[in-house]
Amino acid sequence: MRIKPLGDRVVIKRLEAEETTKSGIVLPGSAKEKPQEAEVVAVGPGGLVEGKEVKMEVKVGDKVLFSKYSGTEVKIDGEEYTILRQSDILAVVE
Amino acid sequence: MRIKPLGDRVVIKRLEAEETTKSGIVLPGSAKEKPQEAEVVAVGPGGLVEGKEVKMEVKVGDKVLFSKYSGTEVKIDGEEYTILRQSDILAVVE
Amino acid sequence: MRIKPLGDRVVIKRLEAEETTKSGIVLPGSAKEKPQEAEVVAVGPGGLVEGKEVKMEVKVGDKVLFSKYSGTEVKIDGEEYTILRQSDILAVVE
Amino acid sequence: MRIKPLGDRVVIKRLEAEETTKSGIVLPGSAKEKPQEAEVVAVGPGGLVEGKEVKMEVKVGDKVLFSKYSGTEVKIDGEEYTILRQSDILAVVE
Amino acid sequence: MRIKPLGDRVVIKRLEAEETTKSGIVLPGSAKEKPQEAEVVAVGPGGLVEGKEVKMEVKVGDKVLFSKYSGTEVKIDGEEYTILRQSDILAVVE
Amino acid sequence: MRIKPLGDRVVIKRLEAEETTKSGIVLPGSAKEKPQEAEVVAVGPGGLVEGKEVKMEVKVGDKVLFSKYSGTEVKIDGEEYTILRQSDILAVVE
Amino acid sequence: MRIKPLGDRVVIKRLEAEETTKSGIVLPGSAKEKPQEAEVVAVGPGGLVEGKEVKMEVKVGDKVLFSKYSGTEVKIDGEEYTILRQSDILAVVE
Repeated sequence: MRIKPLGDRVVIKRLEAEETTKSGIVLPGSAKEKPQEAEVVAVGPGGLVEGKEVKMEVKVGDKVLFSKYSGTEVKIDGEEYTILRQSDILAVVE
Repeated sequence: MRIKPLGDRVVIKRLEAEETTKSGIVLPGSAKEKPQEAEVVAVGPGGLVEGKEVKMEVKVGDKVLFSKYSGTEVKIDGEEYTILRQSDILAVVE
Repeated sequence: MRIKPLGDRVVIKRLEAEETTKSGIVLPGSAKEKPQEAEVVAVGPGGLVEGKEVKMEVKVGDKVLFSKYSGTEVKIDGEEYTILRQSDILAVVE
Repeated sequence: MRIKPLGDRVVIKRLEAEETTKSGIVLPGSAKEKPQEAEVVAVGPGGLVEGKEVKMEVKVGDKVLFSKYSGTEVKIDGEEYTILRQSDILAVVE
Repeated sequence: MRIKPLGDRVVIKRLEAEETTKSGIVLPGSAKEKPQEAEVVAVGPGGLVEGKEVKMEVKVGDKVLFSKYSGTEVKIDGEEYTILRQSDILAVVE
Repeated sequence: MRIKPLGDRVVIKRLEAEETTKSGIVLPGSAKEKPQEAEVVAVGPGGLVEGKEVKMEVKVGDKVLFSKYSGTEVKIDGEEYTILRQSDILAVVE
Repeated sequence: MRIKPLGDRVVIKRLEAEETTKSGIVLPGSAKEKPQEAEVVAVGPGGLVEGKEVKMEVKVGDKVLFSKYSGTEVKIDGEEYTILRQSDILAVVE
């Protein structure tokens, strides 16, 4: 099964805490409203979103930081993903 | 009886939990604000909606994910449907 | 007496529950925020509404679904009508 | 004394309940948020209002329906008037 | 000392109740949210205000009606004035 | 140390009460939401601010009135300043 | 690891209180909603942000003042940073 986000939406897969630590980001489990690291797994086409032109800046495979409570969680094929708007992504990490 | 949504509205039919499981999406019954899977049964013409150009991206037959409390429920010919704006649809699943 | 709505407003006459049942839509009396079926009896000219171009999509005689608490109720010549904006109409039914 | 409303504002004189009944509109005294019938006594020039072009659709002498709590009441030469924006007028009645 | 309002702001001097009565407007002292009569003493240049073109419609010496709680009160050279946006002025009276 | 405000922001230095009295403006100490007099010490470049063209109307040295609780207070080199948007300045006094 | 902010976002590193004192800004530890001094460590590309053209005015190495509770804190490689929109930066200090 494939998932194709609409408009400026992006599907991301949250990285595990262990993996997060490897990349150097420490996120205390009890932190609230803190950004989290995730990997982009699907990107919407962008274009006109609510009458405004949106160009997609992230691509599949990017590691991104996002606000913990952004977007909507969804479980596909037994795995959890988050669908959010690109504007809820704070930064790409390399 | 046929239903023709106005503007950027879309009529969807929620997929049953059983059917949902087959497609690989697990949605716990008590989940709140979680997206749900549905099938598109009618699509508005798009065009100028509140002064903004909207292009319809979904088509009849598409399986879509949407936020549980989006839109308005309506019963037509004994079956329940949801009418919502295309912007409340998160993604198309294939 | 005639009523001419301004801008993108539409005057509708709510269809009785009996009539509603005939057309196949079942609306439980206690339902809240549920759409209702109505017939369009007057349509505003559209055009520039709050600085945005609005094209009227409904016409007199259309059967429409609308959210129960949209618009304002008014009694004219002993009959009750609702005046609402076209954007509060969800769909046309045929 | 004359009153010249600014922008898209309109000065209306509420019609008495008796007069209202004659014109066929019944407005129960205890009704809340219900429209009322009034006569237009002065109309602003329209034009650019908050950056948006507004064309005045009503003229002096028009009978109009408006939401009861729209606008601001003002007493001029011993008579009560209401000053409201044209967009708060629901319809013209004939 | 002179005061030059910025953008679409206007400085007005509230007319005394006595003076108000002469001009035919009766404003009960305990009235809330009622318009009041005032005289314009300074007018901003208009132009681009928050990205929107505003043309000033009032001029120094105009008698205007405004909502009682609009704007900000300021005391200059021992006299009280109100600074408000032109869009908070309801009408000019003559 | 110099401070260069961004966009349409302005840095002002609040005038002391004594100085205020000399210029003719009386501001009771307990007044809330009242404008205050200040001197402009730095002005941002204006230009595109949140997508809207802003032209700076105030300049360094101007005496201005502003709403007491506008902006953010900051202490630089031991002196207190306020940084606020030009649109929070009510008027220039001369 | 490098961090590339999206759109009009900026990554800043808060300056220590000691360092802050040297530059002449005194920020009491208990101050609320007060601006703070920080150094810019990464700047987004600007461009179209929510349909509006944004030009980046700050650059890496700039010392900036920002509101204490703006943005989102993130820990990268053991150091704390804040990611915020350029419009939440009040001024550049030199």
